[in-house]
Parts: sequence; structure tokens; C-alpha cells
Amino acid sequence: MKKGDTYKHQFKVTAEVYKGFINVFGDKNPMHTDEGFAKEKGFPSIVMHGNILNGFISYFIGECLPQKNVMIYSQSIDFKKPVFLNEELVLHAEIEDIFESVKSAEIKFYFENSANVKVAKGKVLIGTNL
Amino acid sequence: MKKGDTYKHQFKVTAEVYKGFINVFGDKNPMHTDEGFAKEKGFPSIVMHGNILNGFISYFIGECLPQKNVMIYSQSIDFKKPVFLNEELVLHAEIEDIFESVKSAEIKFYFENSANVKVAKGKVLIGTNL
Repeated sequence: MKKGDTYKHQFKVTAEVYKGFINVFGDKNPMHTDEGFAKEKGFPSIVMHGNILNGFISYFIGECLPQKNVMIYSQSIDFKKPVFLNEELVLHAEIEDIFESVKSAEIKFYFENSANVKVAKGKVLIGTNL
Repeated sequence: MKKGDTYKHQFKVTAEVYKGFINVFGDKNPMHTDEGFAKEKGFPSIVMHGNILNGFISYFIGECLPQKNVMIYSQSIDFKKPVFLNEELVLHAEIEDIFESVKSAEIKFYFENSANVKVAKGKVLIGTNL
């Protein structure tokens, strides 16, 4: 890994992911489960859990980088636009900085939907060469 | 909700949660799945995915606050200590600020393990009264 390296990975918020997330964590907030509630609040349908995107980040860091000996030290995300069921998202990530002395790397990322709208952006600090 | 309100909620990283997270998101990084790899890196056993804690935050925000009309705007977390399978964690959360004008609230939190060690801490900005 080196500063400036970029990565892209496609994810889809399938019914399997959505239902699986609810089964694992139990967040059945009406915004995520009640079509009528979501519409009343001005959305076209139920809104996916933002933390599904954090799960995608887990996969990206754990599985898509050129090295496996990585660990997330900190992570932040801003949710900009709602994400809906069956949306396809492209994660764009870039190595923003490498800190050789403390064996860590800062990665900035954003998720874009198929209409090329940025739905979320954030940063992850990872430890490398553990 | 008002500034200074505090909440506690207990979570357990059960095998069901751990396996469910892997099934949903596919992060099988060896740190999370290969006992030998984790031990080689100095851990007593495989380390749980940090984003399992973000899933717990989703549950807390969606299900444990006094109002259901909430939505996460942004979220950050620092992982301080590794979390292991079957660990029980207590989430301590506090309303740090209420921004009436923009109908949002900032919540700070930390997770403590049964040895009273803080394993992670962070902040969530939520929208309320949507």
C-alpha cells in the first residue's frame, strides 16, 4: 500500500443483507421497517440502516486490501443521502496517508449510488504489519 | 431527550452475532477467523470485528432512545482494545448536546467490558423529530 493508491468495490444492499443485519442486530426502528412511517417522514420507502455501510467497510478493509494483516483503529462516516433496498453502491477508497513509524494508514472513502450521488463519506485509520 | 441524559445497555458478542456478521458482510479476515494467525499477532484468540460494535450502536439508536423518529447523520468510533467472542459489553451513552434549531442531538458513548476496561468510544450525531 502507498499514498494515493485507490480502490473501487461494488456492493449491493440486497434483501439478504438488509434482513441479515436486522436478524443480527435487532434494529427494527420504523424508519427501517415501516413503509408508512418512512413515507410520512418524506422518504419514498423504508431507509436502509447506515451501519450496513459500515459492514461493507469491514469487508473492504478485511478482504480487499493487498495485505491481510490489518486492523481497524478508528472509523468515521457521514451519511449524506438515504440508501434504499436493492441499491447498488460503489465504494471509492484512497490511501490518504501512510504513517510508517506507527505502522498505520489513513484511508478516505465515499459511497456513490448508481445515479452518481455520494450517499456517504468517511475515513478509516488502520494498523498494518501487525 | 435532553442534554446530560445517560443510558446504559448490555450487549454480548455471541457466536450468533459473530457468525451472523460474517454471513451478512463476508469479512473473513484471518484476524477474525484464524486462531493461529491471531495468536501469531499477539492476541489470545481471534478478535471480533470492530463493526459489530457499530451494529450495536445501530440497535441502541434505533431501539433504546425515548423516541423512534431518529436517524443517524454521522458516526465515529475509536477501537481501544480488542473484543473477543462471548464478551459482554456495556454501552454507556450520554446526550452531549441538543441542537434545537436543526433538530439534532450529539451522543457520546463508550463500550466497557466486564473487566471495566473501555474497549471503544465514539460519537453519533442523530436527527430527531424528522
